Order: sequence, then C-alpha cells, then structure tokens
Amino acid sequence: MNIIEIITKKKNGYALTDEEIDYAFQNYLNEKIPDYQMSSLLMAICINGMNYDETTHLTDLFLRSGDTLDLSSIDAPKVDKHSTGGIGDKTTMIIGPIVASLGVVVPKMSGRGLGITGGTIDKLESIPGFRTNLKEDEFLSLLKKNGFAVTSQTSNLVPMDRKIYALRDVTGTTESLPLIASSILSKKIAGGADKILIDIKVGEGALVKTMSEAIKLSDIMKKIGEKYKKEVRTLLTPMDTPLGYAIGNRVEVLEAMAVLKGESKSPLTDLCVQLASHMVSMGKNLSYDVARDEVLAALEDGSAYQKFVDFVHDQGGDLDQVVLNSNKVDILAPCDGEIDSISALKMGELAISLGAGRLQKEDEIDPGTGIMLHHLVGEKVQKGDVLFTMYGKEEALLPFVDPNEYYTFK
Amino acid sequence: MNIIEIITKKKNGYALTDEEIDYAFQNYLNEKIPDYQMSSLLMAICINGMNYDETTHLTDLFLRSGDTLDLSSIDAPKVDKHSTGGIGDKTTMIIGPIVASLGVVVPKMSGRGLGITGGTIDKLESIPGFRTNLKEDEFLSLLKKNGFAVTSQTSNLVPMDRKIYALRDVTGTTESLPLIASSILSKKIAGGADKILIDIKVGEGALVKTMSEAIKLSDIMKKIGEKYKKEVRTLLTPMDTPLGYAIGNRVEVLEAMAVLKGESKSPLTDLCVQLASHMVSMGKNLSYDVARDEVLAALEDGSAYQKFVDFVHDQGGDLDQVVLNSNKVDILAPCDGEIDSISALKMGELAISLGAGRLQKEDEIDPGTGIMLHHLVGEKVQKGDVLFTMYGKEEALLPFVDPNEYYTFK
Repeated sequence: MNIIEIITKKKNGYALTDEEIDYAFQNYLNEKIPDYQMSSLLMAICINGMNYDETTHLTDLFLRSGDTLDLSSIDAPKVDKHSTGGIGDKTTMIIGPIVASLGVVVPKMSGRGLGITGGTIDKLESIPGFRTNLKEDEFLSLLKKNGFAVTSQTSNLVPMDRKIYALRDVTGTTESLPLIASSILSKKIAGGADKILIDIKVGEGALVKTMSEAIKLSDIMKKIGEKYKKEVRTLLTPMDTPLGYAIGNRVEVLEAMAVLKGESKSPLTDLCVQLASHMVSMGKNLSYDVARDEVLAALEDGSAYQKFVDFVHDQGGDLDQVVLNSNKVDILAPCDGEIDSISALKMGELAISLGAGRLQKEDEIDPGTGIMLHHLVGEKVQKGDVLFTMYGKEEALLPFVDPNEYYTFK
Repeated sequence: MNIIEIITKKKNGYALTDEEIDYAFQNYLNEKIPDYQMSSLLMAICINGMNYDETTHLTDLFLRSGDTLDLSSIDAPKVDKHSTGGIGDKTTMIIGPIVASLGVVVPKMSGRGLGITGGTIDKLESIPGFRTNLKEDEFLSLLKKNGFAVTSQTSNLVPMDRKIYALRDVTGTTESLPLIASSILSKKIAGGADKILIDIKVGEGALVKTMSEAIKLSDIMKKIGEKYKKEVRTLLTPMDTPLGYAIGNRVEVLEAMAVLKGESKSPLTDLCVQLASHMVSMGKNLSYDVARDEVLAALEDGSAYQKFVDFVHDQGGDLDQVVLNSNKVDILAPCDGEIDSISALKMGELAISLGAGRLQKEDEIDPGTGIMLHHLVGEKVQKGDVLFTMYGKEEALLPFVDPNEYYTFK
C-alpha cells in the first residue's frame, strides 16, 4: 500500500477501504505523509465524494485520534447542539439556558471565530471576567450545578480533525459533505453528549449551498449517529440574512439577554424556540409540541433568563460591565421602501473591519465593537430612518458606508 | 484574486481565466504558493479537466518560463518526435539516424528514466564515452554535420514544467490530458523543431489508458500546435507488451543496431518504419507512401546504420565497448504453447531489479544489465525453449523468476 495508489484510486472515483483510509490519515497525523499529498487526496474526496462506509470510518478514525469526554457521572439527559455557522448566530447563549432550565444538560465545547463567522467563545469572553478555559472537573461540576456550561475545545480532543481542518482551510477543500460530516460528528461524539441536534445552515454564504446537499448531509449524519447509538436530529435553516439584530460580541450578548427576557422578537427568537424545543423533546422524550410549550413557559416565567445569569456568574462574568463602545455612527435609509434583503456576507465583513472578528488567527478582537440593526427584512422604512448603528474602536475613524451595499429595497 | 478562490473555482468545474492560471502557476514557480495548494489545484484539474483555451494558456506559460532553442541557423527541415513512454522503447536511437540520413534534421532533447520506463539519455550513456551534456553550440554544429544529435535537457528550458512535473509525480496527478499535453508540447516547442510527431502509447501500463482518451489528447495537441504554427502529427500505438526484444540500456543499443542493419524484424521494426516515414513525410512534404519507400531504402542500403555510427562517434561513444554483463541466466518455457501475452509492466519492474533502471532519482544504473527476449507474442514455443535471458550485475545473485508471471500461453 502506498499513498500515490490511494490518491489515484480516489481520483478515479473508487471507494477506499478501511485500511487505505487508516494508512493515509494516520500517517498524515504522524507526519509521515506531507501536506501536499494529503491536500491532493482531500481534493479528490471533495470532488468524487465518499460513501457512507468511508465517511463512518473516517469519523471513527478522527474520534479515536484523541480523548473522549466522559459525562456518565451526570445523571440527566445530555443534549448537544451544533450549527454549521452563520452571521449573528448567538443561538448557543440563548438555547443553553432555556434547555438547562428545563432539566436537560447542555455540555458545550465551542471554538473561536475565524473569518466572517463569529465564535461563541469570543462572544462569551466579551463579558468582562468570563472564563472559557475550564478544566474538565470544573466543567463537569458546573454542568451538574447549572445544567449548562461552555468551555473551549481542549487540544487532546480529535487532534486529527484539527490538523485536517487547518489544511482544508487553506487548500479550497472545506466544502465536502463527507469531510464536513466526519469533522462535526467526531467532535460532538467526543464531547460526550447522548443526543445531538445539528442546525444545518443553507445558502450562498454558508458551507452548504443547496437544499439537496443539506438533505444529503443530514442523511449521512443521522446514519453515523446510529452507529454510535447517538440520536442525531437535523434542522435545515436558511442563511442569507444576519440572524437577529446584533453582529459582534457584547452586542450579541445584549441581544441574547433581550431574547431571554422576552424583550426582543425576530426570526432569531423563532429559531431559538425551535432549536430549544427539539433539544428538550430529545432529552425528555417528549413530543415537539409539548416540549415547545415548556420552552415558551421557561421564557415567560423568567427561569431561562435566571439560568443565563447564574451560568455567566459561575464562569466569572460580570453582566453589568457589558457595555458597547461610545464611538458609533448611525447609517440612514437612502430611500422610502420595504427592505428586500440584508447581505449577511457584507455585514460579516463590516463587523470584522470594525474590530469584532479576525481575518488571521493572531488578530485581536475589540469586544465593544459591532453592528446593531434597527430594521430587518420585510419591514417598511422611510428615507432617513436609522437602518443600523456601527460601533467602532474608540479613537478609530469609522468607515464610510453606502447603505445600498448592505440593504436592498423594493 | 487569491489561490483559494482559484482552487475552489476549478473544484466546482469552472474554466479558469488566463489571469487566474498566471497567478497560480507563476506564484508557484516563485515559491509564493506552497506545494500543498498547487497539489490541490492539480488534482482538481485532473478530475474536472481544462478546456482548450486553458490548456493552450498553460502551455504558453510553461514555454515562457524559460529559454527557447533557436535552430533557425540550420537550413533544413527540423522534425522532432516524442513518445509518451513504454517498456523497451528505443525508437529514438533508430528513427533519428534513418530520418537524418534522408536530409531531415532531428534535434533531440531527452530525459533520464524514472520508474519502469527507461530514458533515451540513460540508454545512450551506456555506450562508453558517449557525452549527453552538449553545450548549445556543439548541439547545433552536430545537428548541422549529422542531422541528428541528442542532448539532455538544460535546466533553463521550461523550468515551470520541471517543477510542476516533480510535484505531479508524487501527488497522484500524472494522468491528466491537459497536463500531459501542456508538459510535452511546451518542451517540444522550446526545443525549436518546426514539426512534431507524437507517438501516444495507449494501454493499461501507459499514461493514457483508453483509445477515447488518446483521441482527445491527440486533438488538444494538434490544436496547440496550430497556435504556434507547428505541424503536430500523432500516432496512437498500443503499449501492452514490451517493444521489441531488449529491455535495459546496452541491450537496447545492441537491438537498435540490429534493426538499423536490417538484422532484426519485430513489431519494433514496423513501428520505427512507420514513425520515420511520418517524420520524413512531414519534413519533406511528401506523401506517407513515398516517404516510406525512402525510409526502407535507407535501411536497405546501409545509410541509416552509417548515420548511427557517425552520430555515436561524434558524441564520443565507442560502439566496440558495448558489451553485456557475463552474469546471466536463461528462463525457460514451462510448457508447450503459443505466447498469448508478455507483461510490459512486470518486465519493466524486473529490469529495474536487475540494475537497468531507477526507482529513486539517486539510484545508479548498471549499463550491462537488462533483459533479452527470445520469443515474442504470437510465437509457438516448446517446453524448455529459452523465453528470455536476464543480465544481472556482476557478482550479484540473479533473482528467482517464475516465467508464468511474465508470459502467458494459449
């Protein structure tokens, strides 16, 4: 067996055997196969695909490359959630407290943002004092106390996925259903949850471009879940427009609080209710409708918000200090009309340029920067109404912005 | 423009613009794009292809990356020939002298062998004293004197192809029609000939596996030739069985001499007559049949052989010292029967193991080793007849060989 034969086999469209997958990926992890051979194989996989057996075996190999978190000492249902990424996606901060307030544990390992998509870890760290580098025993004890805790991924969890992902990121090989499925599920299974909800974002700005691809990804993920005896549910949700009103870090924490207090209604709120209802339904074996009633009640009676306050407090965060920068400017509607679209891609890029995200791993985030939308798609505005407010770095000149590049009207 | 966008575009099956091809390949040559990104792009090209415009532009880029040989001072038609490789292919040594003896100049730049396919340079260097590293002025003066000279490729000829080829070799991306076409034609055009004959080998052991692929390759090459106003003719010839009787270096020189003296008849002789006739037809604007009569006459009257003797002498070679090693063994027919097939692949591997080729660039060749077949496909043999003779390194133990792994009978 040699790597050129394996690459050529996949290039010619054949399925690889377990032994061939082991040989290629294990030797890559051990640095016996160089980047330029693995990237050639990854491109062949991107174009020619992998069948279910190949994808399952790759997931297994990723999983076995590192440690697995053992949550068996927690005597409650444990449901994890993953979203394939979107602009303004602060759902974790909202649904974690809702679901935990209803007795279902949400053990959340999360990552930092890179590129236009923000990361939950960055958003939570924008709360002064909030600690995300929890040791395993503290993570477990906080899960037992609050039912919800968030920690950054440890380096000994799925190291092979980490290495492969870094290479995919720079070789144009991110968009591949089997590679996406094995990357996400190996991490989620290693994270120790019993059941997993996957929010597959579909749209031009997302990893998954079309509904038919999303359905295929959903099928693969459910089948992989079966192998590990983990229930996997999937939701396919559109990603053309930013999710909710806020894009940034503290600005998103503030929006999450408003949603939990019942003070903000938007498609974000609807999506959070939907996701939380599925998680409660999965965790407590309830019908979706019954679970949904519980979720709405937890929002109504303040228990979800209280769970958020406890969660932040116990990880060291001080919500009183979540303030935005004072250097801000309003962008006004250039005409009368109904808002037809808001570009998620452009808004994500603008948020980065303001200081709310990173283009390179080394970039520093300014937690008080970001964007707050005042009007969403479908709303009518008049010329001169505030469309959105930009919060920049203190002392920095805010960029000149043409609203027509971000909003369209009809 | 960035390399990830270019890779992704080709991954999704779109044609690249001239600017995108320039950006990717020029920056790779300048070492601003790493191997792992280029190998990912090459694999996407292998699977999704390149159209005629892309292939022509890539050929042009290869060509412009280095020097071009100027043969305009030679006042005679100049016709070059390329074969896409085969086991026992010593056609250059045979057709060069034939064609040159008929007044058509054959300027031949050639390479060393790597893997199971031998290289013309290695074969000629097995003649004691033969020099292959000719300076440009000596190459030109020998072409003027004899009409045929062979030199190794200089490093300033198509350096981009050299760098890309080395990467393709180790990333499973050799089998791609546009990459094969641009690699071959950029070298041939840089070599300065007016007209080019391409012998496309087709078969399981060859770069090109099927007739339909060979026809496509032929079409691309002819079109590229049109752009440069160079007539390109192609021949599609099968490559399942070794070409002629000899596989190695001196053993192939001896067979070439026998063919030129009219002492050896085999499919090799027929192919050489065919190739030489095309080259004479192209060079002198004759019909194929008239050119063929001239070729047969040059073989008959000894002028082709005399040209070979002069050519070898003028490049410093001493034909009297072309002797094979004395360490040899005969392999006998295991049964009575008609020979149904001889595996080119297995014979190539056996020749390497005897010392006649290299697996790694650093390997040394022993010029007196190799294989001489005594019976070819279609011949009847009796049990105990000598099928072939192996010549090994002196003092080395010759390998145990099961003839049934090399020959089949019916």
